[in-house]
Amino acid sequence: MMDNEITTWKIKRLKEDRVEELEDYIAVESPINIYVNKRRFVTIFASPQLLKELAVGHLVAEGIINSIEDISQIDVRSNNVLVTLSSSNIDLEEFKLLKSITTECTSIDSYIETLKSMSNLRIGSKLYVKVDDIFKMIRKMSENSKIYRKTGGTHVAALFNKDAKLLYLAEDVGRHSAIDKVIGLALINGCDLTNSVLTSSGRITASMILKAARAGIPIVASISAPLNSGLIAAEKIGITLICFVRGKRMNIYTHPERILLD
Amino acid sequence: MMDNEITTWKIKRLKEDRVEELEDYIAVESPINIYVNKRRFVTIFASPQLLKELAVGHLVAEGIINSIEDISQIDVRSNNVLVTLSSSNIDLEEFKLLKSITTECTSIDSYIETLKSMSNLRIGSKLYVKVDDIFKMIRKMSENSKIYRKTGGTHVAALFNKDAKLLYLAEDVGRHSAIDKVIGLALINGCDLTNSVLTSSGRITASMILKAARAGIPIVASISAPLNSGLIAAEKIGITLICFVRGKRMNIYTHPERILLD
Repeated sequence: MMDNEITTWKIKRLKEDRVEELEDYIAVESPINIYVNKRRFVTIFASPQLLKELAVGHLVAEGIINSIEDISQIDVRSNNVLVTLSSSNIDLEEFKLLKSITTECTSIDSYIETLKSMSNLRIGSKLYVKVDDIFKMIRKMSENSKIYRKTGGTHVAALFNKDAKLLYLAEDVGRHSAIDKVIGLALINGCDLTNSVLTSSGRITASMILKAARAGIPIVASISAPLNSGLIAAEKIGITLICFVRGKRMNIYTHPERILLD
Repeated sequence: MMDNEITTWKIKRLKEDRVEELEDYIAVESPINIYVNKRRFVTIFASPQLLKELAVGHLVAEGIINSIEDISQIDVRSNNVLVTLSSSNIDLEEFKLLKSITTECTSIDSYIETLKSMSNLRIGSKLYVKVDDIFKMIRKMSENSKIYRKTGGTHVAALFNKDAKLLYLAEDVGRHSAIDKVIGLALINGCDLTNSVLTSSGRITASMILKAARAGIPIVASISAPLNSGLIAAEKIGITLICFVRGKRMNIYTHPERILLD
């Protein structure tokens, strides 16, 4: 196919006992290598598009850098993204150490304790959004999920202002990378996210809530389920988490005060 | 809640303009540490159940060991699984090196080349299955997805014999871990998988096809989409891959000769 994030494949489709042969659209995933200061920092299996946005979003959303100002140069060569930081104060080794500590906890209880205490992030936003606007956002996100509609193989994330205006949207084979990309898109375009709503098609974990928190986003809404870690993180950090937004229903799990129910 | 893979959370549910407060069920994910010969080999975020099965399935399905015979002892302590190998011939360092090589490929084209040439696995099974039995398998898998039905937060994988008899089923927050667990369940129970069908609720990637191949499974069927890497791997290895099995339709992507269409 034309777009590098979609390819085609010859299939047999069986439908109501009738078999037809056709070319179908398939979502592509590729290893994307992010280099920071000439050293490979991470390889992410992602859709091969918006690679600069993926790198910027990932580094901010994972808390490696504080803002896009910390990047002095960024180049994309094939599936390699080369990032040069403007500050030499950022200790990448320390980050890898932190990452290792959080996954090395010795019991499930200590993991929950780690989640509860892990972050000094605190979202105190007074943003409020009408419940009908949350429904509108999810509808608009779904309508604009073009790769998903062709392939069924991608996740989508989008950012909205409080009046349900679509600001940015990104699709990716990974639900985490879709969030990285949409945050990267916003940051590259100089958008302040502290009054925005993040929507996602995927199940919500702690790592996704932390990505939103580091970008300053106060409300997260998903079509899918929350996992336990996502709820604990959202509750603790002060993010409003809404899941199972489908048709005319939704579940509000944490900090419901930001949602105007009538 | 009673089961450690499910917890509860107080939510506000909005449905057709009516708000009710209730306790809802949430899927739990926990870091599960697998130690091999006293060294931490991997930490997997998974549902905290069937941990012995997860470890056995993961080690075989990732090609670290060839069979359950390579394990002399296995103990579960909280969320740590301690595996002792019977053979000292298995070089874990070499495996980590291989893993690093496959993700370090320098271009997207070379990744595709790596996928096409990566495996000397070849499934030559003459198994065939009736198309109606594939529909039955997916239906039975869905009916038995008890954690999913309560939480909406898990994936499921199941193994069937050629006549659509359910052999084993496992649910997990990760679609890869659900496959590891169901393969581990079968191996621990001495089941030969070379004439079985693996079903999954998740999108199918190369890594999932490789898991099936290492367990000798010739047919994989999923409710969800395939990704490009999954198709290339299935085509190359000789696995029949069927996706989007929903109601009375399915798409057959690779090696359709194992499916009897009438």
